[in-house]
Amino acid sequence: MQSLSPPLGEFDLIQRFFKTQSEAMLTANPESVTLGIGDDCALLKADPHEEIAITSDMLVSGRHFFADADPEWLGWKALAVNLSDLSAMGATPLGFTLALALPKVDPSWLEAFSKGLFAIANQYACPLIGGDTTAGPLNICITAFGSIPKEKAIRRSGALDGDDIWTSGTVGDARLTLAALRHEITLSQMDLTLIETRMHQPTPRVELGIALRGIANSALDISDGLLGDLKHILKQSNKDAEVFLDRLPKSITLLKQSVDLQNQYAACGGDDYELCFTAHASQRGAIEKMSADLHLPLTQIGIIKPMQQSTPEITLINSAGRILNPEEAKSLLQSFDHFA
Amino acid sequence: MQSLSPPLGEFDLIQRFFKTQSEAMLTANPESVTLGIGDDCALLKADPHEEIAITSDMLVSGRHFFADADPEWLGWKALAVNLSDLSAMGATPLGFTLALALPKVDPSWLEAFSKGLFAIANQYACPLIGGDTTAGPLNICITAFGSIPKEKAIRRSGALDGDDIWTSGTVGDARLTLAALRHEITLSQMDLTLIETRMHQPTPRVELGIALRGIANSALDISDGLLGDLKHILKQSNKDAEVFLDRLPKSITLLKQSVDLQNQYAACGGDDYELCFTAHASQRGAIEKMSADLHLPLTQIGIIKPMQQSTPEITLINSAGRILNPEEAKSLLQSFDHFA
Repeated sequence: MQSLSPPLGEFDLIQRFFKTQSEAMLTANPESVTLGIGDDCALLKADPHEEIAITSDMLVSGRHFFADADPEWLGWKALAVNLSDLSAMGATPLGFTLALALPKVDPSWLEAFSKGLFAIANQYACPLIGGDTTAGPLNICITAFGSIPKEKAIRRSGALDGDDIWTSGTVGDARLTLAALRHEITLSQMDLTLIETRMHQPTPRVELGIALRGIANSALDISDGLLGDLKHILKQSNKDAEVFLDRLPKSITLLKQSVDLQNQYAACGGDDYELCFTAHASQRGAIEKMSADLHLPLTQIGIIKPMQQSTPEITLINSAGRILNPEEAKSLLQSFDHFA
Repeated sequence: MQSLSPPLGEFDLIQRFFKTQSEAMLTANPESVTLGIGDDCALLKADPHEEIAITSDMLVSGRHFFADADPEWLGWKALAVNLSDLSAMGATPLGFTLALALPKVDPSWLEAFSKGLFAIANQYACPLIGGDTTAGPLNICITAFGSIPKEKAIRRSGALDGDDIWTSGTVGDARLTLAALRHEITLSQMDLTLIETRMHQPTPRVELGIALRGIANSALDISDGLLGDLKHILKQSNKDAEVFLDRLPKSITLLKQSVDLQNQYAACGGDDYELCFTAHASQRGAIEKMSADLHLPLTQIGIIKPMQQSTPEITLINSAGRILNPEEAKSLLQSFDHFA
């Protein structure tokens, strides 16, 4: 981390730019970060009653975003996906490091990127505390830190028999936007405008994650698709699940599509960054109040069941209350798409 | 950090491989890491008397290493440069995250890379606690964490008037190796064998960094070249420095080269990962004992001076005790080379 004060003269400009905004944030909130950008390491103060949650995501051009992606959206999204991981554990953001490989120094690109980055950093009081910059194919690697009271982290492994399965917000819109941008489907400009920020500027559910401490038994964020991600909870908790397809929360835009496509995108589309969590039925009242307080829909979409086989299974139930046969379920799950 | 359990089937293999070795390390040393790979975040336990030091470095093919670099060396070096940053603050390694972009899944490359990575991770008891893997141009981003007693971190900004300036080990061999590999100079195979690990498998000075707590007033690791890096201490401490060129510690291999080349490589060659630190003259005895205990040469190479102008200056003094004139100094510094 000699960096953020490194090689190329041009890079000095970049780093000074990041550094100024970073220092402004540290001044505003000096409690947790003892030392920010400019030394060999950053320093975080350790609260004796807290644990530090750590997450790292690498975004690569062509895989996680289009090569010509709006850099302001990209700056936002690069931090958003990490804040989403923090929220899935119930952690409060503390700060982040940014390692950035850039093919060339393009001041207007950098200005827009940092605008998006600091917009979300400021919104969640999560300062940039260090990092690295180098020449190379475009690559954005953020490592984010959060704090959470000891023993309160919401793990994937905590789901219990009979738990309700919940999801926040709506699911499927990021996948619907991708389909429109790929010309797989046609959306009106109005519809696209309504949903495209779901893909480009996802909202990490930070407040929800914090509110779920002590209420949710397990949680994760939906990045690869609801059913695929739910499987991670089931695997780590050794459980099965029943999911009611017609309960999956969908936007009015997605509801205009065919029922098959609605279900595919809502169940399997990636990049939603909503939280999927499980909680005992006795928490329904608390969760409904939470939904009202946060102005965020929270929908019970299924139930955790004891594991029947050696691997966890999800039983899908359609709107008529009928269990999908393996062929039907497979045809739905095949739509699973990793934005590859 | 849904990752390390992500998209491509092939990647599952990789991640399971990293995960197994990671879990073995956590089991051996369960005190600091509450949760490792496999959830949305890793969890570090916070010691109330400690701060967490954080550093992040991104290594890119063609810039930080040759495209055909030995993957075992690469795995070692990727963590070594981060441990070097931790040691420069005096921090004890706690763990690291690895974000890795790979152009393709090559099992033999990955096996060698992880062999080098876990060799150094085990040597310094620094477990892999999380990360991300994706397809993309080869990029290795490691973020490492260390712990250090509160207020004991050795900062770049602490140098005081009259402090001795010290450097560990020898400097210039990594640059000499690079010159030989680039055919800028010719070395015997024997000489190359003696020094090439200095470039490929640098030794982070972790024990030295810890020993320097309470003794050094300032420190950093030498990654971009001794004089260039010393300038960072001077800038942050608002000081000048005098450096005695003939005191720079050089290997017997480097000492076979011309005096001009010796001085250039020792003063300005990058990638050494030795520590440069400053300490009051009263600490000389303690530092000499430290050198003997650690079996590591520690050499006093200069003195910190009050700053005379608005920017920090380094005065270079040659073997005859004569101050280099600006032209001579510039000609030396121009060799400064960032492995670009």
